[in-house]
Amino acid sequence: MNQFKISPLNSPLESIALQASLLQKIQQKTKPLGALGELENLALQIGLIQNKLTPQLKNPTILVFAADHGIANQGVSAFPQAVTAQMVINFLQGGAAINVFAKQNNIALRVIDAGVNHTFAPDVHLINTLIDAKIDYGTRNFSIEPAMSLTQCEQAIAKGAALAKAEIDNGCNVLGFGEMGIGNTSSASCLMSVLCAMPVEQCVGRGTGLDDAGVAHKTAILKQAIQQHALDEQDVIQTLAAFGGFEIAMMTGAMLSAAEHKSLLIIDGFIATAALLAAYKLQPNILDYCVFAHCSNETAHRQMLDYLKVKPLLNLNLRLGEGSGAALAYPLIEAAVNFLNEMASFASAGVSESVASQPEKTT
Amino acid sequence: MNQFKISPLNSPLESIALQASLLQKIQQKTKPLGALGELENLALQIGLIQNKLTPQLKNPTILVFAADHGIANQGVSAFPQAVTAQMVINFLQGGAAINVFAKQNNIALRVIDAGVNHTFAPDVHLINTLIDAKIDYGTRNFSIEPAMSLTQCEQAIAKGAALAKAEIDNGCNVLGFGEMGIGNTSSASCLMSVLCAMPVEQCVGRGTGLDDAGVAHKTAILKQAIQQHALDEQDVIQTLAAFGGFEIAMMTGAMLSAAEHKSLLIIDGFIATAALLAAYKLQPNILDYCVFAHCSNETAHRQMLDYLKVKPLLNLNLRLGEGSGAALAYPLIEAAVNFLNEMASFASAGVSESVASQPEKTT
Repeated sequence: MNQFKISPLNSPLESIALQASLLQKIQQKTKPLGALGELENLALQIGLIQNKLTPQLKNPTILVFAADHGIANQGVSAFPQAVTAQMVINFLQGGAAINVFAKQNNIALRVIDAGVNHTFAPDVHLINTLIDAKIDYGTRNFSIEPAMSLTQCEQAIAKGAALAKAEIDNGCNVLGFGEMGIGNTSSASCLMSVLCAMPVEQCVGRGTGLDDAGVAHKTAILKQAIQQHALDEQDVIQTLAAFGGFEIAMMTGAMLSAAEHKSLLIIDGFIATAALLAAYKLQPNILDYCVFAHCSNETAHRQMLDYLKVKPLLNLNLRLGEGSGAALAYPLIEAAVNFLNEMASFASAGVSESVASQPEKTT
Repeated sequence: MNQFKISPLNSPLESIALQASLLQKIQQKTKPLGALGELENLALQIGLIQNKLTPQLKNPTILVFAADHGIANQGVSAFPQAVTAQMVINFLQGGAAINVFAKQNNIALRVIDAGVNHTFAPDVHLINTLIDAKIDYGTRNFSIEPAMSLTQCEQAIAKGAALAKAEIDNGCNVLGFGEMGIGNTSSASCLMSVLCAMPVEQCVGRGTGLDDAGVAHKTAILKQAIQQHALDEQDVIQTLAAFGGFEIAMMTGAMLSAAEHKSLLIIDGFIATAALLAAYKLQPNILDYCVFAHCSNETAHRQMLDYLKVKPLLNLNLRLGEGSGAALAYPLIEAAVNFLNEMASFASAGVSESVASQPEKTT
């Protein structure tokens, strides 16, 4: 995807000067050096992304992309495919976990039909409006044929990019990414296996709640599909098209566009990280713009995060998707910006610095 | 401390019935079983503490206890003792990390002088009022003599208990605990070593920023002091009195009272957990009422948490104290209560349950 131009954060000379100024500002806050741990790294990252000493988080928004998967008919999920559409309606009615957590933390929520196998009736009683970006009524079964055509994959990426751009044009500078799609841990596992060149057995988990026999069945189906499509880590778009889903490809496009336009990206769990993995293979600089919300209880997520050499903020054994981890991590991101902007410095508060920080006396 | 009567959460029959009802309510939410991980455990715990299916968090408050330590003159801290009073003034002016995080998360803050070596002048320009519970102008040097008398220790516990009770009488049912006191990691390390019966070397860390030589010096001082006082894990009040500090003993009392009155307790970092350790030795049931906010970067904190067999919510390499970790963890506690009260059930949202959850058909 050469159309996305994502700048690295640390190369221009002015950014090196800004980095030094941000570090000095953080070190002058009334606390021991480094005592705010990961929040200090976050404050530095956000300052560099926004290119200022006093960054602000504006109009935080989570995009939840929903789509169906042909592979769901192969018995790879504990839930029937109809649950995707039912949960979309639940999002629109305000009853899902992501609704509760987004509301609590003052995050706007956008629900996007990327390709659900259902025609949604307009309903004035819903609290959220569904954004129609449907590519098709679910992907095809990737154990038989590619989940989507290359054209559909490019459409999904472009639609995702346009949706992220619209939020940024509307004043948002922090975007979280979530998803809903029965069967989509299967897509994510295949993407991980191909794009990280890892055996599929290391990439498969229980999804929404398979037992051991279910995991063995899912692994066998995915292994056969990966052999059949015979792709490798260079074939990013082909791999996205082969294994889907529409919601994952659309997230990949949205992530690329968000980073290109210097938004902070909050990456949710296993499936959102798989979408980011595809984006990273296309534009490695995207990692500079990402915060990883949590490490999922879906076992392969830890390995995916290790592959990207990134550290998540939360470890709460979540495995829900929907962007729920992104919404839960958001107050920590706010805290990083707030301490940078609002805490007193040693000088302004009249607090003595540590003995080691004081200039040595000449005797 | 026989005056505190803390009930275990799981013994009465009605609580077993409530536990079953809470679990059923959590399992009927529109998400895979267990998908909200630690938040599900939290929701159950808070429901049991409040003895209801729809618990509410009311008037969340963090008590920050400050005091000075005679041991600070032994070169055990990277900061001079004067910083305790300076930071108290910073708390009152709103410039410290705890001010920023408490404000962000709508948590009330109370700053308590438990024994700072300074006379604070009344100042109408401050945004917070200092609560005067001063026991003395700092503890004595515990490398020479007990930090405080048994009478002072009991006074500190009683004052802490009264302060917590006053908040609860005022409608608060969730109390966080934080502290400030140059030298107080030394007290906490000695309390841990004696009360957990662990070698002092496993209980000492860098505090606010000692180098290797500083840690070696601190360890030698503490080792000698522990040998000199010759106490063991049964001698809880004597150990609190021997090693201090006033802020730690006052926190211990506040924690015991908060649990007795069925508040949720949010335990901050290394020093707050040391205070809780003393409370736990007096009343083991107190653990049922505690949420552990984070695992500190002070290395011994992980072992203290392991000793108590508890799991913290956050792991962000924080090592600031002040209750800052408690304030940062609070939105996760809110999220647990909110999902329990606000999420739709499978039935109310019309969402299909997992295949495994459905009753088998008779054929």
